[in-house]
Amino acid sequence: MGINGGIVKSRRTEIIEAAERLFRDKGYLATTMRDIAAETKLQGGGSLYAHIKGKEDLLWEIATEAIDGFFAAVYPITTQDLPPDQKLREAIIAHIEVISTRLSAAAVYFDEWRHLTQPRRDQFLARRDEYEQLFELLIRAGSQQGVFVVPDERLATLHVLGAMNAVRHWYKPDGRLNAHQLADGIATMLLNGLQGR
Amino acid sequence: MGINGGIVKSRRTEIIEAAERLFRDKGYLATTMRDIAAETKLQGGGSLYAHIKGKEDLLWEIATEAIDGFFAAVYPITTQDLPPDQKLREAIIAHIEVISTRLSAAAVYFDEWRHLTQPRRDQFLARRDEYEQLFELLIRAGSQQGVFVVPDERLATLHVLGAMNAVRHWYKPDGRLNAHQLADGIATMLLNGLQGR
Repeated sequence: MGINGGIVKSRRTEIIEAAERLFRDKGYLATTMRDIAAETKLQGGGSLYAHIKGKEDLLWEIATEAIDGFFAAVYPITTQDLPPDQKLREAIIAHIEVISTRLSAAAVYFDEWRHLTQPRRDQFLARRDEYEQLFELLIRAGSQQGVFVVPDERLATLHVLGAMNAVRHWYKPDGRLNAHQLADGIATMLLNGLQGR
Repeated sequence: MGINGGIVKSRRTEIIEAAERLFRDKGYLATTMRDIAAETKLQGGGSLYAHIKGKEDLLWEIATEAIDGFFAAVYPITTQDLPPDQKLREAIIAHIEVISTRLSAAAVYFDEWRHLTQPRRDQFLARRDEYEQLFELLIRAGSQQGVFVVPDERLATLHVLGAMNAVRHWYKPDGRLNAHQLADGIATMLLNGLQGR
């Protein structure tokens, strides 16, 4: 592993984690490179630029890592040999668990990405669309197989995504329910909602 | 009515509507009084201050008007003599219809309120809590009467609020479904979700 990997957190990782926290707490626009340097205890802004080219590079890196995290958790579920409702249930739980374990990155993924400039903005949105398609395909498959009875497949997809993603607004790591309990409860309510009565 | 009311939109209303749009499009922090003056075609910043004390006063006025709008639409439903599931269904539809007809105000209500300073910030949150209680009371009543079978009443409340409020992220006035159709579809999925199977 060497001293730059393994247990010792690299300077670059430290900088990215500090930026994530600041982007979430203050917003991207209000965060300065000086704030990030102060948070990582680097002297002035100078040495920060030895690791990172600029603030938008941090935003881009956090946004793309966040998408990678969602894909890594959910894509393998979608390829399993299971009925679509079971896959959707597991995918919902996995998605909410990524949000709850990576709350700061989620703030960038859902909100602060707006400050990316082109062509990165479009690249980000294209990959996010691709990810969200995973949910749409499960919902369409379930609807075609009669497992789901939904008013409209696209509306059902937007509903599921919206309900999962709303967790970022109120989830607290020290809350009454842990991340798995609440992900499981929301998955139950969403699945019941799609299955009709 | 006189020339300041009725059909003729007052200068003050024009300013507030311009601020709403700008706060939504650019965010509160990035919007300047100069932007608002330009949008309302007032010369410079000077004459704007004849109508409005400052940017935060606009934010406060938009935020409180937004809450008033939600209360006015939903509170009367909660006092009707109907079973809790029917009241919840109507309340969900009314809430989503407020969001879809007042998208710019919704951006302040959901996101930009964070830039209010104290004591207004706490005042805003207290009234928003009071409003959200209307939904929690319906869900608890339905759960106690056995109409709803939910994993957790508080979680169910957060789920319903989150799913309704997510509509602001994707609703487009010229979309395939109109505001009532999508509000109705989401109400159906949410109610099915709470009623279990």
